[in-house]
Amino acid sequence: MSTRAGIVVTGTEVLTGRVADRNGPWLADRLLELGIELAHISICGDRPDDIEAALRFLAGEGVDLIITSGGLGPTADDLTVATVAHFCERELVLDTALEARIAEILNRLMARLRSGEAPVGAVDFDTVLAANRKQALIPAGATVLDPVGTAPGVVVAGTPTVVVLPGPPRELQPMWHKAVETDAVRAAIAGRTSYRQRYVRMFGLPESALADTLRRAEPQVDGFERLEITTCLRRGEVEIVTRYEPDAEPAYTRLLALLHEQHAREIFSDDGSTIDELIARALAGRRIATAESCTAGLLAARLADVAGASEYLVGGVVSYANEAKTELLGVDAGLIAEHGAVSEPVAEAMAAGALQRFSADTAVAITGIAGPGGGSPEKPVGTVCFCVRLSSGEKLTRTTRLPGDRTDVRERSTTVAMHLLRRALSTD
Amino acid sequence: MSTRAGIVVTGTEVLTGRVADRNGPWLADRLLELGIELAHISICGDRPDDIEAALRFLAGEGVDLIITSGGLGPTADDLTVATVAHFCERELVLDTALEARIAEILNRLMARLRSGEAPVGAVDFDTVLAANRKQALIPAGATVLDPVGTAPGVVVAGTPTVVVLPGPPRELQPMWHKAVETDAVRAAIAGRTSYRQRYVRMFGLPESALADTLRRAEPQVDGFERLEITTCLRRGEVEIVTRYEPDAEPAYTRLLALLHEQHAREIFSDDGSTIDELIARALAGRRIATAESCTAGLLAARLADVAGASEYLVGGVVSYANEAKTELLGVDAGLIAEHGAVSEPVAEAMAAGALQRFSADTAVAITGIAGPGGGSPEKPVGTVCFCVRLSSGEKLTRTTRLPGDRTDVRERSTTVAMHLLRRALSTD
Repeated sequence: MSTRAGIVVTGTEVLTGRVADRNGPWLADRLLELGIELAHISICGDRPDDIEAALRFLAGEGVDLIITSGGLGPTADDLTVATVAHFCERELVLDTALEARIAEILNRLMARLRSGEAPVGAVDFDTVLAANRKQALIPAGATVLDPVGTAPGVVVAGTPTVVVLPGPPRELQPMWHKAVETDAVRAAIAGRTSYRQRYVRMFGLPESALADTLRRAEPQVDGFERLEITTCLRRGEVEIVTRYEPDAEPAYTRLLALLHEQHAREIFSDDGSTIDELIARALAGRRIATAESCTAGLLAARLADVAGASEYLVGGVVSYANEAKTELLGVDAGLIAEHGAVSEPVAEAMAAGALQRFSADTAVAITGIAGPGGGSPEKPVGTVCFCVRLSSGEKLTRTTRLPGDRTDVRERSTTVAMHLLRRALSTD
Repeated sequence: MSTRAGIVVTGTEVLTGRVADRNGPWLADRLLELGIELAHISICGDRPDDIEAALRFLAGEGVDLIITSGGLGPTADDLTVATVAHFCERELVLDTALEARIAEILNRLMARLRSGEAPVGAVDFDTVLAANRKQALIPAGATVLDPVGTAPGVVVAGTPTVVVLPGPPRELQPMWHKAVETDAVRAAIAGRTSYRQRYVRMFGLPESALADTLRRAEPQVDGFERLEITTCLRRGEVEIVTRYEPDAEPAYTRLLALLHEQHAREIFSDDGSTIDELIARALAGRRIATAESCTAGLLAARLADVAGASEYLVGGVVSYANEAKTELLGVDAGLIAEHGAVSEPVAEAMAAGALQRFSADTAVAITGIAGPGGGSPEKPVGTVCFCVRLSSGEKLTRTTRLPGDRTDVRERSTTVAMHLLRRALSTD
């Protein structure tokens, strides 16, 4: 019997989609790492009846652990702790030590406010003051999780055990790590099976071809049925996630070998690395510049997502208009007139311009038609030309037709560019 | 009594966070528009027991309508229709007319495949062929929603009525609009209250100041209690969403007037427009260029998000390294040495360079410290300098200290830049 958990995400702004929930997916990952099976994520508004209904639902499904996020703030519609107390049939009691700790946090915030150090909007002083006592009310016998912001969390042992965490991800995440170390959570998840989880990432392979490979692998891999394999298309890549108990490792090793045999060209990672991490490593010691039309800066921004990118990212040009291609990248206006702005010769000239203008040794150019307008029978929406150039003289040029809407085409274009870049750098 | 609905999102890849759910928030918005209250969004994996548990939970909560997304594909783990049939106590029957329609779709796909027109990965032919019959099995008496992709949806009338939709947003969205027109859904939502929903968006106001204003508004607004007001911080802006029945319009009108009196400077929209839409309108007839350091293209990419941006977006320079600022934007190296790359004089010089190099009439420059490294006591992480310049000579320069991590600082910077741009353009 594996250990199962459920997550209750509270907050009207999350339920109505005005704020995207980041806690459910993050907690799902942490649970997987611990070998706990996640059964349900239930999202509801700030209504006590709905929160309690979600708790009852998960308890009825027999989960061992429930994690809630949100509703710990100081205002009247923050009701999660009181609701959990009612659900767990515990009184709300004032924790005077906790009240003192919150007062201390409050004093530090006051000092920062007075010195003008705190950023505007970071501290709502009147509200925090009024809330001091409210936030120190906890279910009798619960374990307190010290606040990272101003809201403490609690762990209430029972069947199921309930972990109550705040909504802001930067508070929830460290407090979850504390929660896992409490006796109550340890006891609740003691029965868990230990799992390994491995990732294989591929690019340029249709999902159906992979399904085919997996079908043919089944009779060739002893213990195939002990591997829980899920495949998923993600940002234009195919990701295979395999989960198994440690003694099924030989089966996974055999499967991995078969995948490498069949799809050597398409597999770019089998150790969990993302393409962004691989590119960051491959760019060490290099100087890269970008030249972007339809993506308009998305590729440069993606390269800069990685902390430390300034070691190798020199810069880029967003050449949205044709005259920007000519003026800033030195693309011959005649070339654009002859082949069109979305063409391989123009992509090559853009990359050459970026190499030269930024004194870079690596350059990537993207020019395409993201839509909804601008398509033609010869060059429909989704047509995108790429070029990677290295100062060593190597040049990789490709034209693809990407599916989807404007946003899809632009995002996928950055992924295609990353993979083209990887290929160019690995053969350099 | 208002009409309530619940959403069941199925899919192991969504539950485990590998794919972000876009259907829950989208459907939540559609339900709000229809005046239907959304009670819960429940996310579970591709396990029939968990799907049925979620359906039972929502039915037990007394919702009038359940909408499911996902699990309509051709493979063995796509089980939503069969599960819904079991839950609704209906037999699965073969709809021969539907089978013929799917065959027809299949034939068109075959033709496209043969002509090489279909993009790689768009069509998994073998699987579709095998699935023809499976996808034509529907709960007895259900209304079929014609497929937009290859998967049909169904509406099963009852208490509650269940609408079964596919997972891909571009299939789900048009099929939802069809579902709303079916007799079964019309009947289920006949009792709904009609609501209006209005948005006020502000920038530069702490949430606590707004809470204060709302507190003071309460005794001054007749019928205040009939306004359902939620406020939320979103991308550095504060959004006030007010929902009310039509006859409470005078109360909303009074509230809106009070908000305008108190926060004239901070309110930038009260008609639902986003800052991106306002900027797109304000830029009509202009030529804008960007110069970005820490945001590395995010601002240019955000301007280009809007279809038709090529009318006014000329381009931009990502000047990540100092020499890129000098070479591509003509920023004096001495200026950088004297004031540092993150300084108002450098931001002003970057904007001037962008104006000149792109022959633009509007330019925005951003230079800042996104972290985690690079901060100092005088210029800590989060320090960002902005400059907007117009060819008319106007210049707006600001330095802010933004909270959060690398991603937060970079994203918020684009929002600050958009608002600075709006201010500059509205006074030009």
